[in-house]
Amino acid sequence: MFHVIAAILILVSLSIGLSFLISLFFRDGDSSGLAISAGIVLLVGLGMYWFTRNPSDLSFRDGFAVVTFGWLAMSLFGAIPYLLTGAIPSFTDAFFESASGFTTTGSSILSDIEGLPRGILFWRSFTHWIGGMGIIVFSIAILPFLGVGGMQMFKAESPGPTADKLTPRIKGTAEILWVVYVVITIAEILLLKVGGMTWFDSACHSFGTLATGGFSTKNTSIAYYSSPYIHYVITFFMFVAGVNFSMHFRAMRGDLKNYWSSPEFKYYTYVTLAAIGMITLSQLLRGNPIEESFRESAFQVVSITTTTGYATANFELWHPLSQLILVSLMFMGGMAGSTGGGMKVIRIMVLIKQARVELHKMIHPQTLYPLRIGKNIVHRDIVGHIMAFILLYFLIMLFGTLVMSLLGVDHITALTSVIACLSNIGPGLGNVGPAENFSGIPLLGKWLLSMLMIVGRLEIYTVLILLTKTYWKR
Amino acid sequence: MFHVIAAILILVSLSIGLSFLISLFFRDGDSSGLAISAGIVLLVGLGMYWFTRNPSDLSFRDGFAVVTFGWLAMSLFGAIPYLLTGAIPSFTDAFFESASGFTTTGSSILSDIEGLPRGILFWRSFTHWIGGMGIIVFSIAILPFLGVGGMQMFKAESPGPTADKLTPRIKGTAEILWVVYVVITIAEILLLKVGGMTWFDSACHSFGTLATGGFSTKNTSIAYYSSPYIHYVITFFMFVAGVNFSMHFRAMRGDLKNYWSSPEFKYYTYVTLAAIGMITLSQLLRGNPIEESFRESAFQVVSITTTTGYATANFELWHPLSQLILVSLMFMGGMAGSTGGGMKVIRIMVLIKQARVELHKMIHPQTLYPLRIGKNIVHRDIVGHIMAFILLYFLIMLFGTLVMSLLGVDHITALTSVIACLSNIGPGLGNVGPAENFSGIPLLGKWLLSMLMIVGRLEIYTVLILLTKTYWKR
Repeated sequence: MFHVIAAILILVSLSIGLSFLISLFFRDGDSSGLAISAGIVLLVGLGMYWFTRNPSDLSFRDGFAVVTFGWLAMSLFGAIPYLLTGAIPSFTDAFFESASGFTTTGSSILSDIEGLPRGILFWRSFTHWIGGMGIIVFSIAILPFLGVGGMQMFKAESPGPTADKLTPRIKGTAEILWVVYVVITIAEILLLKVGGMTWFDSACHSFGTLATGGFSTKNTSIAYYSSPYIHYVITFFMFVAGVNFSMHFRAMRGDLKNYWSSPEFKYYTYVTLAAIGMITLSQLLRGNPIEESFRESAFQVVSITTTTGYATANFELWHPLSQLILVSLMFMGGMAGSTGGGMKVIRIMVLIKQARVELHKMIHPQTLYPLRIGKNIVHRDIVGHIMAFILLYFLIMLFGTLVMSLLGVDHITALTSVIACLSNIGPGLGNVGPAENFSGIPLLGKWLLSMLMIVGRLEIYTVLILLTKTYWKR
Repeated sequence: MFHVIAAILILVSLSIGLSFLISLFFRDGDSSGLAISAGIVLLVGLGMYWFTRNPSDLSFRDGFAVVTFGWLAMSLFGAIPYLLTGAIPSFTDAFFESASGFTTTGSSILSDIEGLPRGILFWRSFTHWIGGMGIIVFSIAILPFLGVGGMQMFKAESPGPTADKLTPRIKGTAEILWVVYVVITIAEILLLKVGGMTWFDSACHSFGTLATGGFSTKNTSIAYYSSPYIHYVITFFMFVAGVNFSMHFRAMRGDLKNYWSSPEFKYYTYVTLAAIGMITLSQLLRGNPIEESFRESAFQVVSITTTTGYATANFELWHPLSQLILVSLMFMGGMAGSTGGGMKVIRIMVLIKQARVELHKMIHPQTLYPLRIGKNIVHRDIVGHIMAFILLYFLIMLFGTLVMSLLGVDHITALTSVIACLSNIGPGLGNVGPAENFSGIPLLGKWLLSMLMIVGRLEIYTVLILLTKTYWKR
């Protein structure tokens, strides 16, 4: 297990090394801090790798621990560059920012982003990109086999070599999806560059988009750019990032129709369009011009649905109903197998269908009503898993809100900061609204929110299972 | 079906008649309005009864329609006395107040309660009492057989003659529980009278307590009475009203131990005590005297847990954590088979146990983990029903909050007014806080909230099932 984490740390150190090269290129004074950070992480990683030679193959149960401790280790060691360059002097804040990056949440404790040196800005956005890649592999290759929250229904659909052992499967899937992820990222970088962004900003924003992260290089996020073209490009790629990456893989092999044969994709598209329609209408009624209403609604809806968190407008000034549509979308999140957070579209679909099944069952108690998604029947054990998952989500949300309130945070900030972190969105409302940041949250609150990001990102059960006695009994 | 509703209307008219006698006794000028109201309702009731002679026995499926239309009819005809006496001139407001009474919610649109004539005040409290009696029969005799939201697990436990036909069963249970309900009510009236309340106020407050309703005859609710004795008596009876009335029936037959052999009762007691402990501590830390801290915490906790809604303190001034403990308790509500609203203790227990079962299942996918409540195994179909129920609760809450926001109500008021009505509590926070009332809610919002009271009171499915096509297909 430590062998895998060692490999992850070596990857992290190489990424810091890349940020070091960027900082050298721009000569912005944070090079030495990044070099030392890369060295420290590399040493720890190599040391750990050395001491854990001859690893045994990962068992089914190891999967839970590897993923959880892997993400914790990334967040912990990823905080070093912030500390050593002096960009974020507090350890709590540095860990929060790092966890927010790797979990593709995008919540920030920084207020002046543009004042940071380029190397650190690149590192910040790059943590998103690594985290996004990690989460695709996790959700497509690992999750279906762990049976977390009903995701085993995707077992057959995953691309790559099918094997029951975890290690070869992860490697196979990772290699394939790696290509897809890189290709789409390059496409966005080029399109943003064409729109007038610098290479540096194009890359950073593409990392943030594809990972549905939300870290920007500008204080005002995407609102900094006045070009509608840039808004539309980012809206499109955020939408793409919220789709199951196996589908992009199949599309690249020529099967473009595979999107539309997925009921989950249809639902994701319809819900997004409906929300855009309603909010556009609300903005029109407030006297805004048509194109701007549509563009801002589309951007904010897709950004929130996919849990990216980029903003071109301060939606706290919108109609309360528009705000609540956005809050509802936060819960849904992207498709399973995407980089999006939230509960995932498929779970919401199962939830709604199950409510109808229950009604029919009461009228005809003797009849069997199978729950269908498209042509497939979802086994009732899986339905049970999904229902339990959603309820646990609400319970953790309630618990988190209680603790935040205990720490003296106001109701709206407490509730939405917890939702924003647990669903890996980024901004909330109130003191953590799109025009604010998380620096004002009390110390303990920042630690709680950091943990919630990891719990939410790893679909809750993966982390919670490590807290049970049964897990550690061999 | 109309035959049963006709019987209900005759009962309503007799109750208005009783209020008329009270108003005659106090000579407070609303007698004629009440007399005319009683006459109108009696005529409609008798007419309907006459035209529906020779009724066929109620089928299983009729149960849903009878209960839903029964409560709607009560609320509708129960609004007539408010209109004809001029106490509430607006039809919307009168319907809201009447529905709030019969569903034992206790939300009010009235600001000056003490200015109302005695006859109307009595009627207002008496609607609680009738509604409370109705809900006990509904939840103990009808609900287990309709299989709504997993309540069929109580089938065997219900007192009274067991029969598969609905009508004899309802009659049998109603007769038995009627006695229990009346005895406990009289006990509270006597104890309150001893504490210095007038007979009139003792009766009205006992009606409000036993039904977990919350209508008072005083503008400041129970805070009007400074006597700690009265606070403790009402706290005790609110707690009693949150217990399954079958247990009181068994206790009156001598089986006092039956309370403690119920896991649901234990859980209800422990949660209540824990909440009282935490809030008392918080009040002590704020420098309040010991006895007052305990008494106010106990009163508010029991009032909110049982969804009564009486108040001796404005908990909006308490620590945010205390407020959120109270909000969490709102969701739970009383035991199944009590007059309390909310989701019911048993459902929360199943939810928490199911989350643990799911965790164990993931570690040992091949092993079966039955869900146990006490010594009994809960069938997984019932677990499914309960999970679906809780999720539907949250969905309706979300939907209700969205609509309220659309009507221009602020976030906190929108959310808590919906929770307060759906869970049949009474007061919320914000503009519908314990020191405010619902008169400022927009017209459409009042209708929505009235419907939510009925939907929540009848355990959601009973009403929703009437909206499905399958139900009406014979």
